[in-house]
Amino acid sequence: MLTNLEHLGLAVQDLEAATALYTTLLGEPPYKREHVASEGVDTVFFKVGGSKIELLAGTTPESAITKYLAKKGEGIHHVAFEVADIRVTMARLREQGFVLLNKEPKRGADNKLVCFVHPKSAAGVLVELCQEIG
Amino acid sequence: MLTNLEHLGLAVQDLEAATALYTTLLGEPPYKREHVASEGVDTVFFKVGGSKIELLAGTTPESAITKYLAKKGEGIHHVAFEVADIRVTMARLREQGFVLLNKEPKRGADNKLVCFVHPKSAAGVLVELCQEIG
Repeated sequence: MLTNLEHLGLAVQDLEAATALYTTLLGEPPYKREHVASEGVDTVFFKVGGSKIELLAGTTPESAITKYLAKKGEGIHHVAFEVADIRVTMARLREQGFVLLNKEPKRGADNKLVCFVHPKSAAGVLVELCQEIG
Repeated sequence: MLTNLEHLGLAVQDLEAATALYTTLLGEPPYKREHVASEGVDTVFFKVGGSKIELLAGTTPESAITKYLAKKGEGIHHVAFEVADIRVTMARLREQGFVLLNKEPKRGADNKLVCFVHPKSAAGVLVELCQEIG
């Protein structure tokens, strides 16, 4: 079962401008910044109740975010749901016919193991499953 | 202040197929269906922790969802944040330069007063503010 809408990932062109904008919109500054070299992204995290907003900017031409921005422009990139055991959820979804983009959970931002579900399996939405690393 | 990521609105072509798909993905059936005649949409709601997933299908050619689907296809349509007092938040955001799509709060689905923020004001994201009708 997916237990929480853990975060919403937004692809942005200008990370500093978007950080200032979301600080004003949400009424609170971000609580964390993190560079994820393996994904070629800089991230900024805001807390909103029990969920988070993650701003994502690409730092390399090969980054999935750089490519997304070139193709679709700024907007909501993915939605991440928290799961208690990512391997159990991945096995269940595979069995139920969902196409997963990762064979094994991979290390993501914010101390998480993550796996993505193909948008074609989820009505056009890029879904991330994430499990906190204990 | 925006206190909670209240729901994520997904535009879908086939409401029954998407409902079956998200029931399997989330591991729980929806808790509510609602037709919103004023917006020309049928909606289906799922609970995920303290947030909701709202599936939206257009029921008229003039519906914003019908137009969105024709232009962009299925995907994440908007993100809604809960506020304690929507009029106070609308006044604050207007003063800070955000462009609001509604002059006054309007009645939305799920017993809410809602107002939309223009995507150009929020890094390409259609943001909804919502306040539970007490």
